[in-house]
Amino acid sequence: MTTPTSESLGQNGPLKNSAVLVDGVYLNGPTLDLKAAETFVQEALTLILEEAVRKGTDVREKVCEWQPPARLTEILDLELKEGGEAHPQILQRCRDAMRYSVKTGHPRFFNQLYAGLDPYSLVGRFITEAINPSLYTYEVAPVFVLTEEAVLRKMMEFVGWEEGGDGIFSPGGSVSNMYAVNVARFHRCPDVKEQGVAAMPRLVLFTSQECHYSISKAAAFLGIGTKNVYVVSSDERGRMVPAELEKQVQRAKAEGACPFMVNATSGTTVLGAFDPLNEIADICQRHNIWLHVDACWGGAALLSQKHRHLLQGVQRANSVAWNPHKMLMAGLQCCAFMVRDRTGLLQRCHSAQASYLFQRDKFYDVSYDTGDKSIQCSRKPDAFKFWLLWKAVGTRGLEDRVNRAVALARYLAAEIKKREGFRLLMEPEYANICFWYVPPSLRNEPEGKEFWDKIHKVAPVIKERMMKKGSMMVGYQPHGDRPNFFRQVVISPQVSREDMDFLLDEIEALGRDL
Amino acid sequence: MTTPTSESLGQNGPLKNSAVLVDGVYLNGPTLDLKAAETFVQEALTLILEEAVRKGTDVREKVCEWQPPARLTEILDLELKEGGEAHPQILQRCRDAMRYSVKTGHPRFFNQLYAGLDPYSLVGRFITEAINPSLYTYEVAPVFVLTEEAVLRKMMEFVGWEEGGDGIFSPGGSVSNMYAVNVARFHRCPDVKEQGVAAMPRLVLFTSQECHYSISKAAAFLGIGTKNVYVVSSDERGRMVPAELEKQVQRAKAEGACPFMVNATSGTTVLGAFDPLNEIADICQRHNIWLHVDACWGGAALLSQKHRHLLQGVQRANSVAWNPHKMLMAGLQCCAFMVRDRTGLLQRCHSAQASYLFQRDKFYDVSYDTGDKSIQCSRKPDAFKFWLLWKAVGTRGLEDRVNRAVALARYLAAEIKKREGFRLLMEPEYANICFWYVPPSLRNEPEGKEFWDKIHKVAPVIKERMMKKGSMMVGYQPHGDRPNFFRQVVISPQVSREDMDFLLDEIEALGRDL
Repeated sequence: MTTPTSESLGQNGPLKNSAVLVDGVYLNGPTLDLKAAETFVQEALTLILEEAVRKGTDVREKVCEWQPPARLTEILDLELKEGGEAHPQILQRCRDAMRYSVKTGHPRFFNQLYAGLDPYSLVGRFITEAINPSLYTYEVAPVFVLTEEAVLRKMMEFVGWEEGGDGIFSPGGSVSNMYAVNVARFHRCPDVKEQGVAAMPRLVLFTSQECHYSISKAAAFLGIGTKNVYVVSSDERGRMVPAELEKQVQRAKAEGACPFMVNATSGTTVLGAFDPLNEIADICQRHNIWLHVDACWGGAALLSQKHRHLLQGVQRANSVAWNPHKMLMAGLQCCAFMVRDRTGLLQRCHSAQASYLFQRDKFYDVSYDTGDKSIQCSRKPDAFKFWLLWKAVGTRGLEDRVNRAVALARYLAAEIKKREGFRLLMEPEYANICFWYVPPSLRNEPEGKEFWDKIHKVAPVIKERMMKKGSMMVGYQPHGDRPNFFRQVVISPQVSREDMDFLLDEIEALGRDL
Repeated sequence: MTTPTSESLGQNGPLKNSAVLVDGVYLNGPTLDLKAAETFVQEALTLILEEAVRKGTDVREKVCEWQPPARLTEILDLELKEGGEAHPQILQRCRDAMRYSVKTGHPRFFNQLYAGLDPYSLVGRFITEAINPSLYTYEVAPVFVLTEEAVLRKMMEFVGWEEGGDGIFSPGGSVSNMYAVNVARFHRCPDVKEQGVAAMPRLVLFTSQECHYSISKAAAFLGIGTKNVYVVSSDERGRMVPAELEKQVQRAKAEGACPFMVNATSGTTVLGAFDPLNEIADICQRHNIWLHVDACWGGAALLSQKHRHLLQGVQRANSVAWNPHKMLMAGLQCCAFMVRDRTGLLQRCHSAQASYLFQRDKFYDVSYDTGDKSIQCSRKPDAFKFWLLWKAVGTRGLEDRVNRAVALARYLAAEIKKREGFRLLMEPEYANICFWYVPPSLRNEPEGKEFWDKIHKVAPVIKERMMKKGSMMVGYQPHGDRPNFFRQVVISPQVSREDMDFLLDEIEALGRDL
């Protein structure tokens, strides 16, 4: 260690203490120029408010500024180099990143099961990003541990668990569903944690053909195997048929397997269907099977007096997954996994008791160190933004949003039935509206295989055109035997009937010549 | 549907089209007051910049404003109610949330393997929160798909995979390690995805006693069972002993089990040790075992010419986990999981081919729809903030940070050796400095069981006092036979030798009377 003159320190300026050099590095004073950093952050924020918030939610602006991958690669100058770039260049990169991103907060972004930009949630997210906490212990994240607990408690109240339960926020509904499979399995065979699946009877779980694909991902990831997911058929509206579930359970039993979990879906991804929970719960009760309800999308209906009947029986579930980042606009990601158990099952199932993190000799009540319930170590405080949003709009405000979204869906369905060339798959129960557009050239064709093959090709072309124009985004997919159809999803309170009318007009304008 | 008068619409104001009422909800125009929302966001941002950014990184401010759970519950008024709250109240909630949060960006937050606040990463995070993308398809997240790819490519270059590889960002190092276990298992037994673990030979994986606890969580979660994690002993510095690994592999083989993966750690959590990768790779090669390197913490050393020798041999790994949110300050979370395989293994292992999301008839190259490599469905664009940071400071800037952190660690170790009452566990190789503080009352006691029992109680008391004072935060833990000691971690370029000196002075001031 040598002591340099203050001149040799450059940006660090004159030193009060003698400078210290270790391994060729001067260690005095911070090396970050805080003043310049602050100015940069200020300038960037002005840009973000303009580009992402103001323009990003302005119906007169484009939803997206489409560029193909090769061209966008050039524009963004992706390569990471030896030297850094000055602030003006970095600000330009920020501008480009926003410009060429899809504006998911735009009133005409209808592409996924989330949309819109809520100002309270956004502020909550800015706070947590600036604070950068990790949610393992009360010690490092006191505010976020408590707000997570408060949100879970309230959500469980709406699930109808009068005596409460337990829960954790997870990075996505898929992970919540994995939690469900793991907890259900552990509940049935506590030895599985130590012994593994190989030492257990063959474990089988049940779900409908309409369920989210994360159930099969979970079965693969958790070592159960996708062949041990017994698929239960659904009715024409996409709801699980309880009699079919009973048959599948009987089949598994006859095979000598161990049926340990049923996954019911409240709000399926494509059709927005709700499985009949009470009838499913009866079967689960009879066979002593864990009932998990994937209410990631449909859970929001619980907040509505008008629509909570869709989840009738949900309080009988052993576990529930519910994503407020979808219908309730809490911002990606915000995903609760909840169990009715109050004996510490979640903790026992997942804990590894790391002594460097979950010390038992801390000076406060370590039951607030909730991190060992999780499969994660560092974890984002996803509940906070939802807590802030809920504080701001109240339960009534959330209920209004749900009611409005479903009402808009009904309005759209009614309009579709009135318009020539549009065909509804089925009346919506919730906020998914599925429909075909039939271009004029096909309207008088007989509805055979050829007709449907042609219909199948319509949606992808219209989608390409709307993306290149940037006027809106709406998803399409085939589904079982059904050829490609549009799935419109209504969420944001910024959306109005004018946007519904626009959607239909625009599809017609883009597809009329097909 | 009825048509109301414009008066009855209240906040919606006069209507251009006739109003539409469905299910008691008026559907015309947006219900969100965008002007008021913007003002709110602006005001909140001013607050965030002041409280979380400026004060949160100011060495003269407290690291934390400690409150016990019961008191903090009252202050925050956690309960969620029927009605919402007005903006001034919500702003007060924001202020409180920041005030009572731990300032992880503070120069004296030394408590975890992450710290500091980087302005570029912060701006990157503000952008992604405002844009709110989900990283499943190029269609909805073009910029974020490309920046993720660019970052992975560059990181793999530093790993030393000259021909590239494949990868994905995950929500935490624990999840990355789970990916490793799953991919290694699938590589060995491709049938496991469909058939499950029960249909396979008994799968055994190996890791050192010093590894992160997520390896055992992974074994439990993935249905392998914690008993099938064979623990390999480490030397006194915390490095896996290759001869012991060989013995464990032989043992598993003798038992008729299938050894499928070795987890080596580059930068262990507590001691900061680096397993000898080349010797471990030799054993893996000989036995045809997948080598995963958990470089979540130590990966940053790859960017330093001076320190990359710590990971010598890492290019021989089959997979690597590396978290830029730790040493490189990309902000929680930023976690890369990378595989050397270039045959699509990651995709085959995890894909479920959801037809509503990964349509094959899209109008662009769907190989950019990378989401099916993931176990998640919606996924945050965690690579972007790191891309922006890297663009801003360049590889050289990142290297300087690593070099400075390690130099500071060496400085601190040297100071500890000079000071009476401080005792170093071992010379640091990286940025973890582990040490005991021996209060004056114990300095002349014989070093028997009684002495160490007393030492064990010192760190928790000093920790309590520093938290209540808010002067700094540093972690402690017992470790094997060793009683509680402090683990100091150096990361941020805002930290200087003055902070290192402060740390020692402060521990002495807080513990002198013990």
